[in-house]
Amino acid sequence: MKTNLSRIRKDLESLSRFNATPGKGLTRFSLTPEDRGARDYLKSQLEKLDVMVYEDSAGSLFGRREGTNPSLPPIMIGSHFDSVKNGGNFDGQAGVIAGLEVLRCLEENNVPTAHPVEMAAMIEEEGGRFKSGVLASRAMAMGLTLEELKRHRDEDSISIAEAMASFGFDPSRIDEARRNPGEISAFLELHIEQGPVLEKEGFELGIVSSIVGTDLMGVNIQGRPDHAGTTPMDMRLDALRTAAEVIAKIPSLAIEEGNGTVATVGTLVVRPGAPNIVPGEVEFTLDTRSIQASSIDKVKDRVINILEEKTRTDGTNFQLDQLLRVDPVAMDEEIGKELRGQAKKLGFSCRTMISGAGHDAMVMASVFPTAMVFVPSKGGRSHCPEEWTDYEEIQKGVELLYHTVIELDGR
Amino acid sequence: MKTNLSRIRKDLESLSRFNATPGKGLTRFSLTPEDRGARDYLKSQLEKLDVMVYEDSAGSLFGRREGTNPSLPPIMIGSHFDSVKNGGNFDGQAGVIAGLEVLRCLEENNVPTAHPVEMAAMIEEEGGRFKSGVLASRAMAMGLTLEELKRHRDEDSISIAEAMASFGFDPSRIDEARRNPGEISAFLELHIEQGPVLEKEGFELGIVSSIVGTDLMGVNIQGRPDHAGTTPMDMRLDALRTAAEVIAKIPSLAIEEGNGTVATVGTLVVRPGAPNIVPGEVEFTLDTRSIQASSIDKVKDRVINILEEKTRTDGTNFQLDQLLRVDPVAMDEEIGKELRGQAKKLGFSCRTMISGAGHDAMVMASVFPTAMVFVPSKGGRSHCPEEWTDYEEIQKGVELLYHTVIELDGR
Repeated sequence: MKTNLSRIRKDLESLSRFNATPGKGLTRFSLTPEDRGARDYLKSQLEKLDVMVYEDSAGSLFGRREGTNPSLPPIMIGSHFDSVKNGGNFDGQAGVIAGLEVLRCLEENNVPTAHPVEMAAMIEEEGGRFKSGVLASRAMAMGLTLEELKRHRDEDSISIAEAMASFGFDPSRIDEARRNPGEISAFLELHIEQGPVLEKEGFELGIVSSIVGTDLMGVNIQGRPDHAGTTPMDMRLDALRTAAEVIAKIPSLAIEEGNGTVATVGTLVVRPGAPNIVPGEVEFTLDTRSIQASSIDKVKDRVINILEEKTRTDGTNFQLDQLLRVDPVAMDEEIGKELRGQAKKLGFSCRTMISGAGHDAMVMASVFPTAMVFVPSKGGRSHCPEEWTDYEEIQKGVELLYHTVIELDGR
Repeated sequence: MKTNLSRIRKDLESLSRFNATPGKGLTRFSLTPEDRGARDYLKSQLEKLDVMVYEDSAGSLFGRREGTNPSLPPIMIGSHFDSVKNGGNFDGQAGVIAGLEVLRCLEENNVPTAHPVEMAAMIEEEGGRFKSGVLASRAMAMGLTLEELKRHRDEDSISIAEAMASFGFDPSRIDEARRNPGEISAFLELHIEQGPVLEKEGFELGIVSSIVGTDLMGVNIQGRPDHAGTTPMDMRLDALRTAAEVIAKIPSLAIEEGNGTVATVGTLVVRPGAPNIVPGEVEFTLDTRSIQASSIDKVKDRVINILEEKTRTDGTNFQLDQLLRVDPVAMDEEIGKELRGQAKKLGFSCRTMISGAGHDAMVMASVFPTAMVFVPSKGGRSHCPEEWTDYEEIQKGVELLYHTVIELDGR
């Protein structure tokens, strides 16, 4: 049997209306009027089904279809429904409506399951509003404290706790959102790839084997600001010269390391930053990701070695600032095997791949058996208005999840 | 005989009081209350001497000591008395008070000269207020139009013409400031080096042989912004990768070219500029200077070749934007010889050198026999509150000018 393409399309198109920046991509921050609109739409769809609709104390929305064995924990399918600023209609939402559509199909086809099956629609994955990402999944898998909810504030200085209270949630009960190990039997997330691999290589689906670890380092190089006309080349301490020599070498370090290692210098600031002044200071970020923590460390070590060598040669200095460190997370191998088997049965071409971006599944995997399915991103674009995945491609992912849920339930 | 150290010190310290940013370096824009204060101080000093004090229609202040031969054009000694924002007490002003002190010494020692000797105190050399530098020397050597005075405006949208009128000058008479070839027999400018060479090499004075030409080019490199986690290294079009490879090669190109060629990337902007986005666009400036126009062109050509090669390899694109081009200017060889001879006689160590920065002398040299004397800059610093030259060092430069004026007068 097939999942329903027109419902998938209608869900995504309906959700896209709850947008703070119409015409400029989708902006839906958590605990805002746009969140309320999308949430109410999802509730209205769930309420058409024989499911229990509830919200946890972190602000996530769930639809629970009971199973035949009351002692079994649920199989959960979901993702987030917040967006970045001026983002697209698919990131997160594709995975939420995948959960909704699986519930619909189970009911439509009168498929009884031993386990309960739940759809999860989570908030603040992007950290767009409070700069505190994967919030709802952290509340569910790891637990959050009231203190954390009070600490993180949006641009108007409203804390998460204040926003939750205004929205109707009780931040002092945040701990109730936490689920213990064993309380979710499997967590399945469908997500857009946000990269070009599936499209370029012509695969319909990606089965994620692991989510990369991320290391974000701030690099500050100090030279001396001098007059660009009056200072001979051999009397300069040019911070940008050092930076350029180092940055030019980084791509080959990542390529040589393998293991899907990527390294990116995405920001660079020159000070004082005038055409006629030799750069006295340069600050840049180095984002290194890999499925092997050791590969991240090796690339970082080599960059630091080059920094030491070049600053010594150039007479400049450098400082490092560790801004972020998340270790790689493996997805559940058994569920991955099941997904690949079901894809084969259904005739979908798929490849095993790593996720270079963080997801709710990354957090859930630390406590619950977790898997991720990727659908192709047109041109590899995401977090922008051009973000696109054909509805037929999402449908294939939903189809795979539907059959995999039934298989997992029967094990 | 010696020039007077305490007067030089008192002049510079007195001028430093006319400052819009006390405690944060010297800020004295042209045609402002600070200009008025400094101008009145200079007038009061000139009025103590037997000289004619006058202003030209461009706003420059002159003190003229008549010569014995009424048919001879003046020997002029001067510089500018405006500053950059938050600059220092020596840039420009050292050369103005050098002119003043030469007049004092000629009178004090009852030295008759055949030529008139003039001190010139010029405005808006830095372009700090109207972004239109070497204004007064351009008015004198090349002529300015009323239209130009109306076109350039300060941050408050006041045009040069409006500022001149409020200050008491008639912009419609700007052409009267222009002097024809032959109307100045020699123009001598003492200036701080603004670079580290004299101090590092232990010379007391520098005799400028030529002022470098300057080429300022904007370089724009276009790649594609992609997710830093999900885009494999071999599927990126990273604009910063290309830029870094090119920028890393520029210093050696300038060094290999010789002729005092310097090349500087002083600004660089990355777009969109987020740690987790591969740079889609990079914009930087390339400032190339040399005493040989051909050396500037050779370095530029080699940079463009590297840009073509790297963008082809990396799959990126680039565009160039010519922002400024000034050709090199030679100082008068005969006066230079005279300055070196006098320095030797006076026992001052001096080296012949090029000026890497533009000056009023650069403009004057296109029409009048012109020479420049550099005094050392502590640590090579200028255009900052730390700008410093010992008064004794300025005195040596003034001494050299005094004796050279007498020699030039006698030729």
